[in-house]
Amino acid sequence: PKMKLPGQEEFEVSSACENVPTGELENGPGSCPSPDGTSDTDRGDRGVPTDSLLFIQLNELLGWPQALEWRETGRWVLFEEKLEVGAGRWSVPHVPTLALPSLQKLRSLLAEGLVLLDCPAQSFLELVEQVTRVESLSPELRGQLQALLLQRPQHLIQPTGTRPCQGSAHPREASHNEEAPLKEQRQNPLRQKLPPGAEAGAVLAGELGFLVRPLGAFVRLRDPVVLGPLIEVPLPSRFFCLLLGPSTLGRGYHEMGRAMAVLLSDRQFQWSVRRASSLHDLLAALDAFLEEVTVLPPGRWDPTARIAPPKCLPSQHKRLLSQLREVKGPSAQHGALAEDRHGHWPHAPSPELQRTGRLFGGLVQDVRRKALWYTSDFLDALHPQCFSAVLYIYLATITNAITFGGLLGEATNGAQGVLESFLGTAVAGAAFCLMAGQPLTILSSTGPVLVFERLLFSFSRDYSLDYLPFRLWVGIWVATFCLALVATEASVLVRYFTRFTEEGFCALISLIFIYDAVGKMLSLTSAYPIQSPGSPAYGCFCQYPDLGGNESQWKKTEPKDRDDISSMVRKVLGDFSSVLAMLLGCGLDSFLGLATPKLMVPSEFKPTLPGRGWLVSPFGANPWWLSVAAALPALLLSILIFMDQQITAVILNRAEYKLRKGAGFHLDLFCVAVLLLLTSVLGLPWYVSATVISLAHMDSLRRESTACVLGEPRSFLGIREQRLTGLVVFILTGASIFLAPVLKFIPMPVLYGIFLYMGVAAISSIQFTKRVQLLLMPAKHQPDLLLLRHVPLSRVHLFTAIQLACLGLLWIIKSTPAAIIFPLMLLGLVGVRKALEWVFSPQELLWLDELMPEKERNIPEKGLEPEYSLSGDTEDSELMYQPRAPEINISVN
Amino acid sequence: PKMKLPGQEEFEVSSACENVPTGELENGPGSCPSPDGTSDTDRGDRGVPTDSLLFIQLNELLGWPQALEWRETGRWVLFEEKLEVGAGRWSVPHVPTLALPSLQKLRSLLAEGLVLLDCPAQSFLELVEQVTRVESLSPELRGQLQALLLQRPQHLIQPTGTRPCQGSAHPREASHNEEAPLKEQRQNPLRQKLPPGAEAGAVLAGELGFLVRPLGAFVRLRDPVVLGPLIEVPLPSRFFCLLLGPSTLGRGYHEMGRAMAVLLSDRQFQWSVRRASSLHDLLAALDAFLEEVTVLPPGRWDPTARIAPPKCLPSQHKRLLSQLREVKGPSAQHGALAEDRHGHWPHAPSPELQRTGRLFGGLVQDVRRKALWYTSDFLDALHPQCFSAVLYIYLATITNAITFGGLLGEATNGAQGVLESFLGTAVAGAAFCLMAGQPLTILSSTGPVLVFERLLFSFSRDYSLDYLPFRLWVGIWVATFCLALVATEASVLVRYFTRFTEEGFCALISLIFIYDAVGKMLSLTSAYPIQSPGSPAYGCFCQYPDLGGNESQWKKTEPKDRDDISSMVRKVLGDFSSVLAMLLGCGLDSFLGLATPKLMVPSEFKPTLPGRGWLVSPFGANPWWLSVAAALPALLLSILIFMDQQITAVILNRAEYKLRKGAGFHLDLFCVAVLLLLTSVLGLPWYVSATVISLAHMDSLRRESTACVLGEPRSFLGIREQRLTGLVVFILTGASIFLAPVLKFIPMPVLYGIFLYMGVAAISSIQFTKRVQLLLMPAKHQPDLLLLRHVPLSRVHLFTAIQLACLGLLWIIKSTPAAIIFPLMLLGLVGVRKALEWVFSPQELLWLDELMPEKERNIPEKGLEPEYSLSGDTEDSELMYQPRAPEINISVN
Repeated sequence: PKMKLPGQEEFEVSSACENVPTGELENGPGSCPSPDGTSDTDRGDRGVPTDSLLFIQLNELLGWPQALEWRETGRWVLFEEKLEVGAGRWSVPHVPTLALPSLQKLRSLLAEGLVLLDCPAQSFLELVEQVTRVESLSPELRGQLQALLLQRPQHLIQPTGTRPCQGSAHPREASHNEEAPLKEQRQNPLRQKLPPGAEAGAVLAGELGFLVRPLGAFVRLRDPVVLGPLIEVPLPSRFFCLLLGPSTLGRGYHEMGRAMAVLLSDRQFQWSVRRASSLHDLLAALDAFLEEVTVLPPGRWDPTARIAPPKCLPSQHKRLLSQLREVKGPSAQHGALAEDRHGHWPHAPSPELQRTGRLFGGLVQDVRRKALWYTSDFLDALHPQCFSAVLYIYLATITNAITFGGLLGEATNGAQGVLESFLGTAVAGAAFCLMAGQPLTILSSTGPVLVFERLLFSFSRDYSLDYLPFRLWVGIWVATFCLALVATEASVLVRYFTRFTEEGFCALISLIFIYDAVGKMLSLTSAYPIQSPGSPAYGCFCQYPDLGGNESQWKKTEPKDRDDISSMVRKVLGDFSSVLAMLLGCGLDSFLGLATPKLMVPSEFKPTLPGRGWLVSPFGANPWWLSVAAALPALLLSILIFMDQQITAVILNRAEYKLRKGAGFHLDLFCVAVLLLLTSVLGLPWYVSATVISLAHMDSLRRESTACVLGEPRSFLGIREQRLTGLVVFILTGASIFLAPVLKFIPMPVLYGIFLYMGVAAISSIQFTKRVQLLLMPAKHQPDLLLLRHVPLSRVHLFTAIQLACLGLLWIIKSTPAAIIFPLMLLGLVGVRKALEWVFSPQELLWLDELMPEKERNIPEKGLEPEYSLSGDTEDSELMYQPRAPEINISVN
Repeated sequence: PKMKLPGQEEFEVSSACENVPTGELENGPGSCPSPDGTSDTDRGDRGVPTDSLLFIQLNELLGWPQALEWRETGRWVLFEEKLEVGAGRWSVPHVPTLALPSLQKLRSLLAEGLVLLDCPAQSFLELVEQVTRVESLSPELRGQLQALLLQRPQHLIQPTGTRPCQGSAHPREASHNEEAPLKEQRQNPLRQKLPPGAEAGAVLAGELGFLVRPLGAFVRLRDPVVLGPLIEVPLPSRFFCLLLGPSTLGRGYHEMGRAMAVLLSDRQFQWSVRRASSLHDLLAALDAFLEEVTVLPPGRWDPTARIAPPKCLPSQHKRLLSQLREVKGPSAQHGALAEDRHGHWPHAPSPELQRTGRLFGGLVQDVRRKALWYTSDFLDALHPQCFSAVLYIYLATITNAITFGGLLGEATNGAQGVLESFLGTAVAGAAFCLMAGQPLTILSSTGPVLVFERLLFSFSRDYSLDYLPFRLWVGIWVATFCLALVATEASVLVRYFTRFTEEGFCALISLIFIYDAVGKMLSLTSAYPIQSPGSPAYGCFCQYPDLGGNESQWKKTEPKDRDDISSMVRKVLGDFSSVLAMLLGCGLDSFLGLATPKLMVPSEFKPTLPGRGWLVSPFGANPWWLSVAAALPALLLSILIFMDQQITAVILNRAEYKLRKGAGFHLDLFCVAVLLLLTSVLGLPWYVSATVISLAHMDSLRRESTACVLGEPRSFLGIREQRLTGLVVFILTGASIFLAPVLKFIPMPVLYGIFLYMGVAAISSIQFTKRVQLLLMPAKHQPDLLLLRHVPLSRVHLFTAIQLACLGLLWIIKSTPAAIIFPLMLLGLVGVRKALEWVFSPQELLWLDELMPEKERNIPEKGLEPEYSLSGDTEDSELMYQPRAPEINISVN
C-alpha cells in the first residue's frame, strides 16, 4: 500500500491510489446507475441502496495533557446521537447541524493529510502502523502515537429499555492488545438493530499537544475488518479517519470530527467515497456535499437547538433531480418531474382501469391477472405477522358485526339481526376472500348500505309490504344491474370520483350517523326526562355510559407510534379501544344495574324474525308486480353499492401502498353482486368493501425494512398480499355465532355511542371539514396549508360554500319522503364537480380537489399559465407531487 | 461618486470608496462598542440596536423575454415572507434557508461588480443613472436597462385582517415617472407596524437575456431616500442591490437575491455594512456571516420545509461571545460567561437581600430606596394600558374574593364570610399598594393561609373556644413575630428557599385543594346517592355543573397568543375563563332549578357572624391565659406567612422581569404584619401576596417594543411599575360590596370546582410533577428535558423519590391531630434540602434544583470536575444559564 505524506501534491495521491481493485469498480457506476442505488423499476422515493449501511462512531481524545483517554462521544447512522456525559446516556437522535468553518477546516486538513484508499490492513495494529508512518513524526513520537491509538476506548453501552449503566465503560488503563471483539461489544443491544452486512466508520479526533502540526488521515480499507474494541459494536470497519493536532484549535477537532462523521453518514457522500480513486475524488465528494447543504442564517436560529428527525425524509430521488438540474439545466428537471408525476399521481389511471371495449373484457382480464398469483396468495401468508393480523382484524370484524347487526335489527324491527349479521359476514367475507380481485378487502356492512336498508324498510312498512320478499327482489335486480356494470366495464368510471365526490359521500353519511345517534339518545332522554328533584335532592344530568366510554375511543385518532417495539401492550390497547369502550360501557351498565334497552339476540340458531326459514320466499304476501317494481329502488341501491365499493377500491389500490399483485375492480364488483344475490336469498345483510377495516388489514400486513436505528424512519416495502388472513378471520367469525347469547348484555346506548363516534371521526378526517373551519377563521390564524399557498382564499371559500350547498341540498332531500333517491343525488355530485370546471381553473382544482381524467391529460399539452410558471419553482413542484396521506376515514363503514 | 467597473481589482475599490463621511464614522464603533449596539448597562439579551431597523424587499424581474415586469416576491425584517403567487397572499413568516452555492455566487458577483458606498443620489432616477454607468454596457443597452429599472414594480399590498385582494397590484404597463410615493404605498397597513426611523433595503434580481455578462451592483446611499414606488412602503432606502444577468443561471438570480436579502436582514451584517469603507469590508462581512451559519446536511432535512420562527431567538450576546471566542480563545468566553451568569442567575442575591447587620436595617434601606420612586409611582401610571390592567385585575380580584370568602365562610361556619372577604381585600389591598415595597403585588387570601385558618377553626371548635377573640390573639402574636423577623432582617434567608422548597410547598397545598374539593363533592353525592331507577327509568350519573363549567377553564393553561392584535375579544374570553365558567355554572344551576347549596351572603352590611360588631372583643368567652397560649399557633402561622409571602416576593422580583425600582422584601413583610394585625382586630381574613394574580398584574403592565412585523417576537422592555393600578383595583373592590346580594345565587359546587381547578393547575405546573411522570415512563419515551441530558436517570429518580417521601410524610402529619404544625414541617423541607448536599453533587443539584448560597459561591473556586468540563461545551453552558421560564402557578393563591 502506498501512502500520502502531508504536504504532497494531490496528483501524487491520485497516482498512488490507482490500485483500486476492479471488483470494486464492478460494483460501481455500471451496475448502480444512480447514486442512491435505486434501480429504474423501483419508482419509490426510498430506494434501497445496494451499498452496506454505515454506522459511524466518533471517538474523541480527551483529557490532554494529564489523563488521555478515548471516549465515544457521538454516533450516526442517518441522524446524530450525542453522548450526554453528565446523564450517562445517549441523546435522542436528531438532525446534525454543523458550523461551516468546521467543514472548511476539515477539507483543508484532508487535502494536506494522508489518504489511503483500499488500504489492505487486516487488523487494527496494521492500520495504526500505516497511518502513523508519516514523515513529520519522529520515531519516538510515532511510538507514542501508536500506543495512544491502540488504547482501548470507552463506550457507553446502554441496555435498551432499562436505565443506562455507566459501569460498562472500561477503566482507561486497560490497554488494547487483542483484536477479538470484547464480550460487551458482542452483547451490545445496538447490534441487533443494525441490519446484517452493516459496516462501520470510525472517526478519531482530538487535541494532542505533542504534535507540532495537525495530523489528518483518511483510510478506506480494502476489506472491512473488525478493529478490536474500537467500535462499540463488532462491525467490520470500512472507513477510518484520524484528526489530531496541537492545542491551537481547541474544540475545533471535536467539530471537525463531527463534520467528518456527518459526511460519512450521508448516503451520497458514501456512494462517492466508496468509489473514489484519489484524493481529488474525495474532495469532490465533499464539495458536492457542500453544494447541497441547507444554510440557516445566524441570529434567526439557535445553532444549539436540536432538530427532531423529520417525519418525512427528502427523497434521494429529489437529490438526484437537483444534481441533474445542476448538470443538465432545467430541461432535465422537467423530464424527471414528469416521470415523478406518474409515479405519485394519486389517481393515476392504473392498467386495471383501461377499457378493453369488449363485454366482460375487464372481468376476464382481472381473472387472468389474478389467476397467476393464486398459489402465491396462500404461500405468502406463511409469516408470523399474519397471526397478529388475524387476531386484530377478527376483533374489528366482530365489533362491526355486532354494531351494525344490532342497529340493523332495530332499524328493520327484527327482520335482520345480530345472528344474520354474524352469519352473513362470515359467509360473504370468506367467499369474497376466496374469489375477489383484491383479497385484502374486508367485506362488511357499511354505513351507506345501512342507511339505504333503513329507508327501504320504512318504505315497505309505509306501504304494508312483506319486507324480506320485497328485499329479495331488490337484491335480484341489484345483482343484475351490477353484472351489467361489470359487463360494460363501468368501473373505469371511478376516475370521475374525485375527492369532491368522496367527501360529499362521506360527509352526508357521517351527518346521518351523528344525527341518528344523537336523536336516538335524545328520544330516550325525553321518554325518561331529567327528574326535577324536591328540595333536599340534587339535580342530575342524565348521561349515558356510552358517552363516557367513547372518550377513550378518541385515542384512536392519535398517530400510532410505529417505532415502539417494547410497548406492545400500549398498541393493543390503542387499537382495541372501541372494544374496550364497549366492554367498559357494558360493565358499567351491569354494575349500576341500569335498565337500558339491550341488544335483541335470539336464544337459538334460527333467523331473528320469528317464523321464517333460512330461505326467503320469493313473493310472500306481496303482489307479483312488486318483483318488477323493485327494479326502481334496486337501481338506486346499485348506484350506491357501485359508489361505495369503488371509492373504497380506489383508496385501497392507491400507489403509495405499493401493491404488487394489482387490483381487480371488475372482479370485485362481480363478487359483490353475486354475494348480494346470495345474502338476499338467505335474508342476510348486504355487504360491500369497508374502507377502514380493509385499511387496518393492510396496515397490519405491512412489510418494513427490519433495521431501524438512530431515529431513521423505517422504510415501507409493501404489503403481504394474500388471501389466507381474511379467510381465517371470517371462518373465526362464523365460529363465533355461539357468542350470540353473550351479546344480549350489550345495551343499545353503547352501540349508539360507537355509531356517534364513527360519524364524528369520519367527518373530522376530511379536508372539507378543515375548509369549513377556514371559513370562520381570521387569515392570521389560519394554518399553513399547502392549498392556501396556491389558491386565493376567496376561491377556497367559494369551493367550500358550493360543497356546503350541495350537502344542504342532499340533507333536504334526505329529509323529504323522496329520501330513498339519495344515491342518485350522490351521483349528481359527479356532475356538479364536472360543472365546477367552468368556475375554477385547473390549477385551483388541482389543489382543492383532483383533476378529472380529460383535464389531467390536457394540462401538459396546454402548457402552464404565466402565474403558474412563476410559482412552479422546485419547492412547490416537489410538494405538489408528494403522495397525499391516505385518508383513513374517508367512508363510514 | 466614484464607481467600480466589473473586472477591476479590489484595491481600486478600496481607494475609490475612501470618501466615507466622518459623520458616519462618529456613529460607528466608538459609540457602539458591541456589534448589536447594546450598551454595557443593558444586561438583557435583547438589546435595542441603535441602528435603524431595516426592511428588505426583493423585486424580481419576471417574464423574460416576452413580458418583463418587476414583482415583489419576498420581504424580510428578521424572518422571511414569500409571495404565494397562486394564492395572492404573503406566506407566514419563517426562518429563511439558503443554499450555500447561492451565497458563494453572490460573493463572486459582488467581488466583480460595482460597489458604491455612500452614494449621494437623491432620487431613484439619479441612482439608476449611477448604477448603470458601467463600461460593459453599450449606450443603447444602458438606456434599455434604465427604462427597465424605472418600470413600476408590482406589489401585493395585503390589508390586515381581511382577505387579500390581488387587485391592488398595478398594471404592468404603468411606468414609473414620478418620485412621490403612491397613495397605496402610503396606505399600506404594513407601514404602521414598522417603527419610526425604519429604513429600507431593495434587492432587484432577475434574468435579463440581453446582458452578455452578469451585472452586480451594491449601493449604500449616503442619505436614505424614498425611491418612488420601488418599496411597498414609502420608507427611505439605505441599501440598493442589483443582480441581473443572462439566462445561464436560470433561477440562480432569484436565489442570489434571496441570499442578499437574508444577509441584509442580519443585524451583524447590517452593522458591518453600514460601517464598511470598501469592497473588502463588504466581503469580510459576508465571510463573517458565513462563519456563523448553521449547516444542515442534505438528505436529512428537506430544504423546502418552512421552519417556524423560534419562540426564543439566540441572543446577540451569544453571537458576540462566539466571535470573542474566535478572536481571543476560550478564556474570553469564560469571562463573558461568568458575567452572563450574574445577569441571569435566577436567585442571584439582589442588593435588597444583603444583610446590613443593624436592627430594622433592611426595612430602613427599603423605605429609603422606595421613597425616591414614590412620586414616579403615581406619574408612571399615566398610560392607557393601565386602564385595561385595572379592569383585568379587578375581575380576578373579585373572583378570588368570592371564592375564598365563600370557602372561608363554610370552613369557619360563618365566622368569616364573603362580606368580610370583600371588605378585607379592599382595605388590606389598598393599604398595601400605598405602603409596600413592591406595589405591583396584589394582596389576597391565599391557599396556605386558608388551610391554616380552617385548621385553627376546627381546633378552636374542638376545644370549645370563642373563635374570633382567639384568632385576634393569634394575629397579635403573628404581627409581633413578623416584626421580629423584619427587625432581624430574616428576609435574607429567602435565598435558602430553593425550587425544592417551593415545589414541596406548592404540591402539598395543591393536594389539599384537590382532596378537599373532591371530598366535598363526594360527600354531597353520598348524601344524595345515585337513584336506582325502576324498570322503565334510565340510570343517571350525578354530575355537578361546576365540573362541566371547569372544562373551559383549562384553556387558561394554553400559552397566550401575544402576537395577536386584532382579536382582543379572544384574549378577554381566555383571561376571564374562570369568571365565564362561574357564570355558566350559576346560569345552568338556576336554569335547571337545581337545589344546590348556595353561597351564604348577609342581606345587609354587617358582619356575617350574627351579633358581633366590627371590632373583635379581645377576650370574649375565652380564659385570659389563652391570649398567651395563642403564641404557639401564631409561631406556626408566622412561619407559614413568612414562607408564603417571601416565596411569592422572590418570584415577582426575578431578574427576567427587569424591574427598575427594586424590591422591598423587608418593607413588604412589615406591611403584611401591620395589615394582619388590623384584619385580626376587625375580624377580617388574613392576606399575603398572591403569586398568580400579581404575575397577571405585572403581565398586564408589560412594556414592549411597539414594532412587531414579520414574525419577530416583540422585545420585552420592562413593567410599568406604579402604585395606582393596584390602588384603583382595591377601591373598586371596596365599592363592589353592594354586589354582595347578587352573590347568593352562586352554588357552592361551582366554588368547589374552581378550587379543584386551582389545585390541578398548580400541581400540573411544577417540575416535580414532570419528574414523577418520568418515574413511570420507559426511557425511550421520555421527553428531551435539559435535566435528563445532564443528570443520570437513576439520580433523577432518587431525587423525585425523596421529594415524594417528604410529601407523604407531610400528608400523614396533615391527617393526624397534629395537623396544625404543618408549617413547621414545610420549613423542615429547607433542612432536608440542605441534607441533600451530602447525597447529590452540586452539578446534579444545579440541574434538579438550584444551589444554596454558600455552594453557589464555592463552585467557581472549587473548579469543575472532569466530567463537568467535558460536557461544558458552549451549547450546554449557554442553555444552563438561560433564564428559566417563570413558573406561574408555583403557589396556590
